[in-house]
Order: sequence, then structure tokens, then C-alpha cells
Amino acid sequence: MSTFGKLFRVTTYGESHCKSVGCIVDGVPPGMSLTEADIQPQLTRRRPGQSKLSTPRDEKDRVEIQSGTEFGKTLGTPIAMMIKNEDQRPHDYSDMDKFPRPSHADFTYSEKYGIKASSGGGRASARETIGRVASGAIAEKFLAQNSNVEIVAFVTQIGEIKMNRDSFDPEFQHLLNTITREKVDSMGPIRCPDASVAGLMVKEIEKYRGNKDSIGGVVTCVVRNLPTGLGEPCFDKLEAMLAHAMLSIPASKGFEIGSGFQGVSVPGSKHNDPFYFEKETNRLRTKTNNSGGVQGGISNGENIYFSVPFKSVATISQEQKNRHLRW
Amino acid sequence: MSTFGKLFRVTTYGESHCKSVGCIVDGVPPGMSLTEADIQPQLTRRRPGQSKLSTPRDEKDRVEIQSGTEFGKTLGTPIAMMIKNEDQRPHDYSDMDKFPRPSHADFTYSEKYGIKASSGGGRASARETIGRVASGAIAEKFLAQNSNVEIVAFVTQIGEIKMNRDSFDPEFQHLLNTITREKVDSMGPIRCPDASVAGLMVKEIEKYRGNKDSIGGVVTCVVRNLPTGLGEPCFDKLEAMLAHAMLSIPASKGFEIGSGFQGVSVPGSKHNDPFYFEKETNRLRTKTNNSGGVQGGISNGENIYFSVPFKSVATISQEQKNRHLRW
Amino acid sequence: MSTFGKLFRVTTYGESHCKSVGCIVDGVPPGMSLTEADIQPQLTRRRPGQSKLSTPRDEKDRVEIQSGTEFGKTLGTPIAMMIKNEDQRPHDYSDMDKFPRPSHADFTYSEKYGIKASSGGGRASARETIGRVASGAIAEKFLAQNSNVEIVAFVTQIGEIKMNRDSFDPEFQHLLNTITREKVDSMGPIRCPDASVAGLMVKEIEKYRGNKDSIGGVVTCVVRNLPTGLGEPCFDKLEAMLAHAMLSIPASKGFEIGSGFQGVSVPGSKHNDPFYFEKETNRLRTKTNNSGGVQGGISNGENIYFSVPFKSVATISQEQKNRHLRW
Amino acid sequence: MSTFGKLFRVTTYGESHCKSVGCIVDGVPPGMSLTEADIQPQLTRRRPGQSKLSTPRDEKDRVEIQSGTEFGKTLGTPIAMMIKNEDQRPHDYSDMDKFPRPSHADFTYSEKYGIKASSGGGRASARETIGRVASGAIAEKFLAQNSNVEIVAFVTQIGEIKMNRDSFDPEFQHLLNTITREKVDSMGPIRCPDASVAGLMVKEIEKYRGNKDSIGGVVTCVVRNLPTGLGEPCFDKLEAMLAHAMLSIPASKGFEIGSGFQGVSVPGSKHNDPFYFEKETNRLRTKTNNSGGVQGGISNGENIYFSVPFKSVATISQEQKNRHLRW
Repeated sequence: MSTFGKLFRVTTYGESHCKSVGCIVDGVPPGMSLTEADIQPQLTRRRPGQSKLSTPRDEKDRVEIQSGTEFGKTLGTPIAMMIKNEDQRPHDYSDMDKFPRPSHADFTYSEKYGIKASSGGGRASARETIGRVASGAIAEKFLAQNSNVEIVAFVTQIGEIKMNRDSFDPEFQHLLNTITREKVDSMGPIRCPDASVAGLMVKEIEKYRGNKDSIGGVVTCVVRNLPTGLGEPCFDKLEAMLAHAMLSIPASKGFEIGSGFQGVSVPGSKHNDPFYFEKETNRLRTKTNNSGGVQGGISNGENIYFSVPFKSVATISQEQKNRHLRW
Repeated sequence: MSTFGKLFRVTTYGESHCKSVGCIVDGVPPGMSLTEADIQPQLTRRRPGQSKLSTPRDEKDRVEIQSGTEFGKTLGTPIAMMIKNEDQRPHDYSDMDKFPRPSHADFTYSEKYGIKASSGGGRASARETIGRVASGAIAEKFLAQNSNVEIVAFVTQIGEIKMNRDSFDPEFQHLLNTITREKVDSMGPIRCPDASVAGLMVKEIEKYRGNKDSIGGVVTCVVRNLPTGLGEPCFDKLEAMLAHAMLSIPASKGFEIGSGFQGVSVPGSKHNDPFYFEKETNRLRTKTNNSGGVQGGISNGENIYFSVPFKSVATISQEQKNRHLRW
Repeated sequence: MSTFGKLFRVTTYGESHCKSVGCIVDGVPPGMSLTEADIQPQLTRRRPGQSKLSTPRDEKDRVEIQSGTEFGKTLGTPIAMMIKNEDQRPHDYSDMDKFPRPSHADFTYSEKYGIKASSGGGRASARETIGRVASGAIAEKFLAQNSNVEIVAFVTQIGEIKMNRDSFDPEFQHLLNTITREKVDSMGPIRCPDASVAGLMVKEIEKYRGNKDSIGGVVTCVVRNLPTGLGEPCFDKLEAMLAHAMLSIPASKGFEIGSGFQGVSVPGSKHNDPFYFEKETNRLRTKTNNSGGVQGGISNGENIYFSVPFKSVATISQEQKNRHLRW
Repeated sequence: MSTFGKLFRVTTYGESHCKSVGCIVDGVPPGMSLTEADIQPQLTRRRPGQSKLSTPRDEKDRVEIQSGTEFGKTLGTPIAMMIKNEDQRPHDYSDMDKFPRPSHADFTYSEKYGIKASSGGGRASARETIGRVASGAIAEKFLAQNSNVEIVAFVTQIGEIKMNRDSFDPEFQHLLNTITREKVDSMGPIRCPDASVAGLMVKEIEKYRGNKDSIGGVVTCVVRNLPTGLGEPCFDKLEAMLAHAMLSIPASKGFEIGSGFQGVSVPGSKHNDPFYFEKETNRLRTKTNNSGGVQGGISNGENIYFSVPFKSVATISQEQKNRHLRW
């Protein structure tokens, strides 16, 4: 369904060509200052078409808060947000009715709903993420204000071009401790904080684009200052909820937290994170953080960090084989 | 919480040293034949101590169905299952009360609940998975009977030793099409279907064990014959639910479906799965399956396959640094 | 929270003076014809101010479908609906900030949220029901088209003036079998199908209004042609879900299904509904329907009928005691 | 389904003739002392057969805690409780297979599940309530310890015999303020605190029993000292959750809170609960409590009180008409 979360609960709506896209965010604590100005910057960051590197369609996504605030303060009631669709014409991809596009949701939507998502009527559009971004902006503001939580996501791989994301490397752990969103955004649209690699990533994308092709990438995210004790044992472990959320993003194909796939080949004696007592904060810390900030599904106060691979975009401008199958 | 699922809903209970562990499974369709004999084999497969390769504790996990069946048929009512704990002594790890074990849940349970999970009182024990396995045996039987669904999981990596799991390699795809549980179980406790690699894996484990150490591994799973149309757009995509479930297993650190992390560096022209029309079944199929059986979060009728890395076991028999921190 | 339902799921938003009120309806089956014209009539019926009997504020509640349909057909995706608030001025009840109004939500909102719901910022406003009505219009259309379900609600009591709603009286059961919404609406704003009583009800309301006072009433509802087998044993019995929904309507103070409170004093030999075999439909029916269409929490194919008492409106134009308490 | 609650979540299992009945209670706070001795008294109170007034079957319902406690303290993990069924023979009502019993769940279970609940295989048995009672005992202990909450339920009507439950009568409100469970239990099995009426109730039951018949009754419940602020606006109002819970009890046909159905005919000027300032507690109170302790769906700190009608038991020992219908 289109709802996620229990205490902070997001419900989204909208397709590519309907009147608007948006969401209802329930469970926002009352008394927090909140206006469109808190949300718009994230929607603007989300927008494709900010550079020649990403798709050139210009989407002017202006958020309008419909409810849940009064005099710039949250009421504790649901916050509805609406972002008008500029392009409300359904069926502008007319050819797609006839043939399902490879690795799009056309075929599966047709099987499940009997409808053609191809015309913009489905929820597999990247515009569906607008409601998530708007909701996330509220969550982020609350977490920052109340617990000084910092969340920074950045690109660590495009195609074959990778920056260091070795969890056993102290340099990478240092990056996780220090990277800021300002730094990431200053790197231009590629949003890779390693300047040497960022240039190569741009070339990698341009290479595939020149070939009328596309390429994938990996996004890594760090969450700092998360309080201890979040997450549930058993099914709703913190990492399980994160994985659920990440794999629900269109085109994501995986998730790893802490040492992830790499950690498999590191013995317990090295993988285990030994404790030490930190005088300044009067609490137990771990010297390494191969666990990625969770133990037994519950946050331990260290950095949460995880990576998510996104496959190459399915829409490519070259002709593809077997396109002319009727369904 | 300890509940997973909406229409087929599992709720588990139990710690290491309480009277019993088990579960309630709600939503099982009525009229299906079901006895303990359907469930016990999976619990026996789950048991550690089946060989010198895994931990030697012998757990005799006998399932007793408490409710939900009559004359060997399901009633449509909740099926409670109970497995007695042989070892009901709490606090047999007395030393652990004093110091949190590195990379165990001792510290986080203490932070969240104010209790010492170390004594067997927490839910981070591997015994918590017993209820999952028992529930899964019911789900598997139903799926097999009603849709001919086949589920086979196997080990593809131990430490540095890997077998081929390249989604772009037709040989691996052939393996996914043909591998059976019988084949996997015939490989001995290592459960790797590639005989050449299996031997090396055993040596890898023995090497670390000899060093009073531990090592991790990757489990790969294929689901065949899943009907098209399963999974929800947006938040409850099929792969998102799978990732949620997999990351909720103790010690798992990641998830990837289809091409996963590897697919990031493969261009769209190669990654896209072209359709063809299969006369025998009168339906659209895809020639490749880099998507891993899902598109737009919905099953497309191809094999679902995914891999999950498990970190090295945190309990190791060598002395570890910084163990004597009071908390 | 502001979400109700599992497979058909409604999430509402909006306060009295925000930009708009509305809802997201998830789980609407695809391929159903649906436009604003299907929803608007129910919103218009809901509007107060249709006559001098109810409150005179004129609300022009125009619904705009935002998403989930294309070319007048549902897509299976969430349907967002928005109804603009004409009156977007917060704080038009300035005096109320100082003193909580008796039997309003002012005090409890203040305790829970630290906000003054009095200014129109809370969810206790009757405008909150707009989203419910809009959602219900979709549900009703689907049920009517697919199962010929008919739902008719009508007023059976105002103050001391009652029409017959004795479940043991065949005349009342006949009314339940035959009453139509057209008939109810033809009775004018009082919506009581018994013409003799309707006039007295109007007088009853006018009497209290003349005294600057208010009075309560009972709404009775019948659902015909509901398929057998709906409702869950145990916690989610059909009548439990109905009671949950009804008691969530502002000002409702109760619920009874079938014989309800009256049935308590009728012995089992008379209360039990004997079966007979109906040749025309080739199925078991019951001769009486004191159960109200449910047995064991599951629909039995007979009429579902229930009554809901609504207390007198708390807003009255006379001066009330103890109003000048600071809080 | 068989699960109720979000933060404190109960899942029950069991039919009349299976091995055991019971429940898993998730969300119990850690560190609370809890043993079987806290739960057994409520199970014993629940048992029918305590006197000649109720059904004579003797059920010896011994609860065994399976998990979630250690050394008599809760761990914060799920608490499983099991109560063995003494009578594990299915099909002891053999005749019932042939004919659905009037006003039992036989017919609806058959329609929904294709099974015969009649043989003890269904969840419509009163034994299903055992898990609820056991769970409730835990909730009650926690609420009493942490907020001094007191919950007392008592019989206010049997057939035509009623005790005073007029919410506008100060004497009834006084009773709600002072009634204790000890007092109720001291009244014998009828559990009506009004001694004069209790005797008549016993005679009423005996009269119908003498006629091989049954009769219904009303249970009224008061909850004292509930903190302000509980309950959610909109769908999950406190009274809506209570109504959901109450209507899920077998044989209940209704619910009313505060003035309920009676309040419909009382004008707003009398129904509204005026506030006063209570110096002793330094908080706002209401002089009357016709609202029943809730306003806008949220507790206001006054007594919560509500009544639930239970229809006459469907199982009667006289021959009933139309029993010999095959289905």
C-alpha cells in the first residue's frame, strides 16, 4: 500500500500525469515551527533536470501545505502536502500501450491491475518519490531539532567508478564522521564528496549517455547522533525497517548496513566492535563500527551507515530488441 | 514488534532459557492438511549441531501444534506452535552480566529495556528463529500445493570462498532454474551446491575455528513459479518486504535482488530484460532476468532470487580486548 | 491516527480553517468508472445549512480528485481528494482561547497536544467528516456495482420523539427491507422515513433552538445484500469494526446492532433466528433477524442494521455556567 | 484477525477442543514483577461453573507463562501464555454437523471457511476469551502500578431487572466513584452491586432456566484515574477503540459510553459538562460527567464508563423449530 510507518506515518499519492502528487504525514509532534520553506529545498534538490547530467525535464515542484499547521506551527494533526503536476496530459507515450517496455513496470501493472502504467497512470514513476521527500523533510527537521540528528547521503559509485567505502578503513569512517550535506551539494549534481572520483563519475555518465545508454550507481548514507535504543528486536529491527524503506525506492536493487557484503569475509575477531568508555560523554562507545550502528536490531549510538545500489535507468534512447511484442 | 505480515501473519515468542519458544500463525487457509510432520523437518534442518562445522550444542526441537487444526486439517483459525526449551536455566553465562559482549545485543538491550539480554533473556538469540522456521514451513506447504512454488536457499560464499553468483552469467541462471533442496541438502552441512567450492568452504570454516575465530557467509535463495502480480507499488514492493524480512534475521547485514550491487556497473542496454512470447505457456517472459523477478515492485513470473550476507558469528572463543568494561 | 481500514484504507486530513480538507483512499480496485460526479452528491448531502433546521453556515464543498483515475476510470492507485476550505481564517473564535468550552475537545486537545483546538486547529471539527464521506462514496459505488449492496441511513429519534425501531416487530423489519435513500431524502432535512413522526421531530428541534439549546438524535442504518462471510472471528468481528467506525464519528455515544440493548430482555427461545431454506436463492436464510445480520462476527447474508446515538450539539447560544475558568 | 492493539498487542489462539488456548502479549514494559499468580485469579473469575447460576461445566484453567519473564520480572519481550484444554476431543456435538444451530456461528463459519465450527473447531467459543482475560490481567497490573488506574465491571441488568445506571443521577455517579471489585465479587456470581436488585436477577435467571431457556444482561464498567490525553482524534478515538474491543466479545450486541442512548433526549444545556477548578489537584475537572470521560475522542481525566449488552445465550435446552435443515 501507499502508507509507511506507525507513529510517524506517511501516505503518498499521485501518478505522472494526474492533477497533483503529495502526501499526508500523520504523527508529527505539535508545536514545531514548519512552513513550506522547510520542505521546498529538499524538493528542489530532488528535481531532475538540474544539470545536463540528469534528465533534462524541468519539474517545478512547489509544495503547498494544506493542513496541520497554524501560524507556522504544527498542530499535531495530519500534515497534507500537495505539489501540482505541470504536465497533466495522460497518454503522451502513446506507442507504449502496444508493447511493454523492458524492465519497466508496464507488464507487471498490466498483470496486477489490468491498466497501462506506461501512460503515466502508474505509481512506478519517479514522481512518486516527491511525497516521500516532502515527508522526509519534516522528519529530518524534527530529528535535528530534538536530537541533533544529522543525515547525509552521497554518491559512492557510478558504473565502475567507486570512491572508498570500505567500512574497515579508518579514512572512510572519518568521512562518515565529518561529511556534511553542504559539502556534498557543493560537488555539483554528481554529489560525490571525493573530488578526484567525482570528475570520473561525470565522464562515466557522459560516456553512456553518448552511447544512448544509461548506467547505475550506489548511494551511501550516514545518520549521526541517533539516540540509543531505537529499533525493535525480532521483525522490526532498525536495519530491517531501513532496508524495507530503501528497497521501496524505484530502481534500488539492494541494501547493506555497516560492513555489509564485504564483512562476510572478515573474521569475528576483527569484525567485532570492542567497547571503550568515553569520559566526555560518560557512556560506552565502540572503537570500530563494523556493525553500522546497530546491534540486535537496536541502535547503539554509533553512526548508522548503509549503501543502496540503483540499477541503470531502464529508459534508454537506443532501439531495443523485441520491442514489438503485443500483450 | 514480534509480528510480521498482514494476511498471513506470524507472531513469535521466546528467549533462550524460557519454558518454550514458538509462534502463532494467523491467516492460514482452511482445509489444508497439516501435521507436525510437515513442520518438523524444517526445524531439524535449522538445528545447529548437525555437524562439527556448526556449533555443537544439540537442540532437540520438537514442535507441538496447539491449535488451528482438527483431524489433520487446518481450520482457518490461528495455528499456535510450541517448541519446548531443553535448557531452561537463565543466567548460565554469569560473567556476561558484568561486561557487554562486543557486537552482541547486550549493550543495546540494556539501553532499551534495562535488562541483560546476555543471560538468555533477550530476543537476539538464534532460538528466536525457531518460530519463523515453523511458520515458514506452513507457508511453503501452502504455496507449493496451490501454485507449485519452489523455494531453495543455499550457501554461495564463506569468507573469501565464493561460488559463481553472477546474475549476468547464463550458467548461474541455469543453476537457479534447476537447483533443488534435495541437491543442497545432499552437500552436507555446508549446503553449497558447487561441489568443488563446498570443500574449500569447509576448510575455510575449519581454519577460522582452529584460530578460535569465526567467519561469515552469503546465502542465496531462489523462488520459482511465483505468480505474477504479487507485491504492492510504492512502500510494500515485493523486494522491500523481502529485504525487511531478511534484514530481520540475526547477523544479516544486507540484501540484494537480481543483479544487486553488481548491476550498478552494467549499462541499461544490457541490464534491461527483453520480453519474448512463450508459446507453451501463452505468456510474455523475459529472456534475461537481471531484475530478479520483479518490476515496479511486482512479481513478473520469472525467478525471484536474492542474496543475504551474514557477518561472522560474534561469539568467539578467543579472549577479546576491552572486555572488562563495567556498564 | 487518521487512517482506517486495511485493504480499503482511508487517510483523512484537515481542520476547520486550513487550506483544504480531504483524504487519500488506497485499495480502490482498478477499472471502476469514477469522477467527481460520483462523490459530490454525498458531500452535498453532508453539508449543514441545507435548511433552517440545521446550522446555517453555508459550506460549498466541491471535491477535486487529485490522483488515481485516468479518463474517468480508477487505476488501482491511491485516490486523493481535496475540498477547499472557504473559511481559512484561523482564530475566529478568539474568546475561546481563554476558556475551554464545556463538552468540546478544547481541554483534551490542550492536554494532549498543548494546542487550542478551539481556534479551528483541531480535528474535532465536523469538517473532519468530509474526507470520510468522500471515501464512503467510492466504497458505496464499488459495493453497489459488484454486489448490489444497498446502504440506507435514516433518523429514528430526535430527543424524546422516536419512530419504531423494535427489531422484534415485523413492521420494522419490513421497513429495513424496503426503505430507500430516495425515500429518506424526500422527507426533507430531517430524513426520518415515518412522516407522522418526522413532523414532530422538526418541532422538537425548533423547540430547543428557540430555547437557545440543542438536542440529540439516533441514526439507524441498514445494509442490504452484503455477501456472507465478511468479518473476522475474534477481534475484527464485522460488528466490532462497525462499532469502531461509528464511535469515531464526532458526538456519537454508542452503537447497537440487531436487537441491541433491547435484546437483553428477550429469552433465547425468541431471540434465536431459526433457519429456513429459501428455494428461489437455494440458500439458508433466517426467519427473524434479531442478530442483525452477523453470527460469530461474520455476515450471514441477512440485513445488517444498527443504530447510533448522537448527543446534543455542545455549541449552544445560551450563556453557560463556569465559562470563565482560565486554563 | 486474532491480534488487537498497537503498542500493547495481544494475539490469541485456540478452539474448544485443541491442545491449549492462549496468547502472546507483545509490548509489555520490562522490569515489572509478573508471575502466574498475577494472572490466575482473573482466569478463575472468568470460569463458568462457579455456581448453579452459570453453566455447570468445570474448566480448570491453569495459566503457564512460557516466555517474557525471568526471575519473576518482565523482560520487555513477548509474554506467551498457555492454558491447557482439559477436553481435547473434537466432535463431541455430533448432531451439529448436520444442522446449523440457530444464532450460532455454525452457518457463517461454514460459509467463510468451509468448516464446521460446531464441533469445537471454531473461534466463536467462549474459550477464546481466555487469552483476552490473561492479557488483560497484565495490562491491568501495569496500569494500576503506574497510574493507579482502577477498573471495575459489574452487572447492571438481567432480562427486565435493572439497577440504576442513569448517568444524570448523582447516585449512579457516586457508585461509579466508589464501587470496588471486592464489593462486586462479594455479591456472589451475579456480580451486581445493588443487593436489592441482585436477588431479583438470580430469580430472573432461574425462571428462564426452569423454562429450558436463557436470558441476556448488561455489563457496566468504570475506569478510574485514567490519565488525560489518551485516545486519538479521528478514527482511533478512545471510545472507538473501546467499542471495537467490546463488540468483539462473543454475544455482545452494543456499546454506550457516558450518557449513551439516554443522552440523546437531554438538551445540550444539561448534557454539557461544565468545568471547575479543583484546588487539591490543581487541575480542571468537570462537575458532571455525561461525556463518560472523553471529549473529542481523548480522555479528560474523569471516569470512563460504558455499558455493553449481551444477548441471551443461544444454546438452550428446549427443542427449537426448523432445526433439521440440512446444509
